[in-house]
Amino acid sequence: MLKKTELLYSGKAKDVFATDDPAVLWVTYKDQATALNGKKKVQISGKGALNLQISTLLFKAVAAAGIPTHYLSTPDQQTMLCQRCEMVPLEAVVRNFASGSFQRKFQTEPLLPLQPAVHECYYKSDALDDPFANDEQIIALGWAKPATLEAIHALSDQVNLVLQAQFSAVGIKLVDFKLEFGWLADGTLVLADELSPDNMRLVDEATGESLDKDVFRKEQGPLTPVYQTVLDRLRGAAHV
Amino acid sequence: MLKKTELLYSGKAKDVFATDDPAVLWVTYKDQATALNGKKKVQISGKGALNLQISTLLFKAVAAAGIPTHYLSTPDQQTMLCQRCEMVPLEAVVRNFASGSFQRKFQTEPLLPLQPAVHECYYKSDALDDPFANDEQIIALGWAKPATLEAIHALSDQVNLVLQAQFSAVGIKLVDFKLEFGWLADGTLVLADELSPDNMRLVDEATGESLDKDVFRKEQGPLTPVYQTVLDRLRGAAHV
Ligand SMILES: Nc1ncnc2c1ncn2[C@@H]1O[C@H](COP(=O)(O)OP(=O)(O)OP(=O)(O)O)[C@@H](O)[C@H]1O
Ligand SMILES: Nc1ncnc2c1ncn2[C@@H]1O[C@H](COP(=O)(O)OP(=O)(O)OP(=O)(O)O)[C@@H](O)[C@H]1O
Ligand SMILES: [Mg+2]
Ligand SMILES: [Mg+2]
Repeated sequence: MLKKTELLYSGKAKDVFATDDPAVLWVTYKDQATALNGKKKVQISGKGALNLQISTLLFKAVAAAGIPTHYLSTPDQQTMLCQRCEMVPLEAVVRNFASGSFQRKFQTEPLLPLQPAVHECYYKSDALDDPFANDEQIIALGWAKPATLEAIHALSDQVNLVLQAQFSAVGIKLVDFKLEFGWLADGTLVLADELSPDNMRLVDEATGESLDKDVFRKEQGPLTPVYQTVLDRLRGAAHV
Repeated sequence: MLKKTELLYSGKAKDVFATDDPAVLWVTYKDQATALNGKKKVQISGKGALNLQISTLLFKAVAAAGIPTHYLSTPDQQTMLCQRCEMVPLEAVVRNFASGSFQRKFQTEPLLPLQPAVHECYYKSDALDDPFANDEQIIALGWAKPATLEAIHALSDQVNLVLQAQFSAVGIKLVDFKLEFGWLADGTLVLADELSPDNMRLVDEATGESLDKDVFRKEQGPLTPVYQTVLDRLRGAAHV
């Protein structure tokens, strides 16, 4: 049985520990919600376990579709074991409908369908406040090679298809989401980080209600019942 | 002889008039400098004529390289006759070295060489404050088709080569520049608008001094002697 060793990184949503296997990370999902790049921060009991379970379910669906991921297993209610990656320092956003910063910046109508889906990259840098960058800026500044960006775009589209299928099957519209990718030691690019409503916008197709972290951002009520709904629906009506 | 008729558009740098030929515009270059999207505005006697002459010289160089442009002729010291276009609503920026908003946003060292040159597009919209957009945003929002963006990128690279040759021959570094493109009635995409130090960053290779509108933006002294230097140098030492 694998043991967790030193804490490598304590993030806003997860703690990342080394294990006695150098290729494996022990990632615990925190009972914490943040917004505005961490300026707003609240402890929410149960959130970590819900995100872990949603993330587990979605990583399994993505992996089942043949997309390489860092996911290994979910040994307990707080922990995901992952393959250790060298992370690409980008947030890869996919937008199926206009929302959030996109909708504000371009003053589109809410939830304007975007077809084909729009990809955006943000450079992960606290000092620079995660700036939006186009592909040529990213390449010129050495944050990713052209082939890596192409692979990220292609993998993001594949992930989009899997997630859209998962959510539309349970009456949820996948508005947008953020992915992170990393390199395994053998040079494989894999989907890493998490797949949870913290990093997606989800809208109930029937009611139009938000089923994601926007509930927290906009203070529309408690978060855990919403995440519980997402998990229950994904698991199928039989489990509710 | 063509006659100018009604004023179609009065911009920050130029007035655009119709003529008795519906395919031809009469564009006068103003004695005015603006910065901060027009918030700062000053009348500068002689600037219009200088920009017109620089723009004329550079449009001729670009056209001589086989790049389609809107340029027709320069009938007097204030006027350029141009082919009327339906404008693509984008500012196409090319950066050879980091400067301005790019250097601030990404906190690079000043004048970091960018290779290959970086292309950026800004959506021309006063209401939205000319937002930076990536290609997929532009396509999803219908501002340009993929093939148009490709053509704009390719033409921008060709213009870059011509301008770099013009300026490097006279000891000036072409740091970055902004282009606009438009459609002729027959469907040809052409380089339009102007080619002047209002829309370029130019640095004296010997002294490192700015030879462009940054002199005005940063209040480094009077603008017309600087633009006169650029014009004189481009015309060749013989004319000085
Ligand atoms: N397989 C992996 N290998 C290495 N690092 C990973 C892996 N998956 C995710 N990470 C990184 O682990 C951290 C997870 O923590 P968390 O998501 O809480 O960070 P955060 O507060 O969002 O901060 P940031 O994402 O800006 O670093 C992130 O830095 C993420 O990029
Ligand atoms: N060949 C052309 N046909 C039609 N319009 C043109 C042509 N060339 C340039 N223009 C347009 O004419 C106007 C020139 O005016 P000017 O450059 O002063 O505008 P501005 O104040 O910069 O405002 P803006 O560029 O935001 O419209 C611009 O709107 C430009 O896009
Ligand atoms: Mg994170
Ligand atoms: Mg202009």
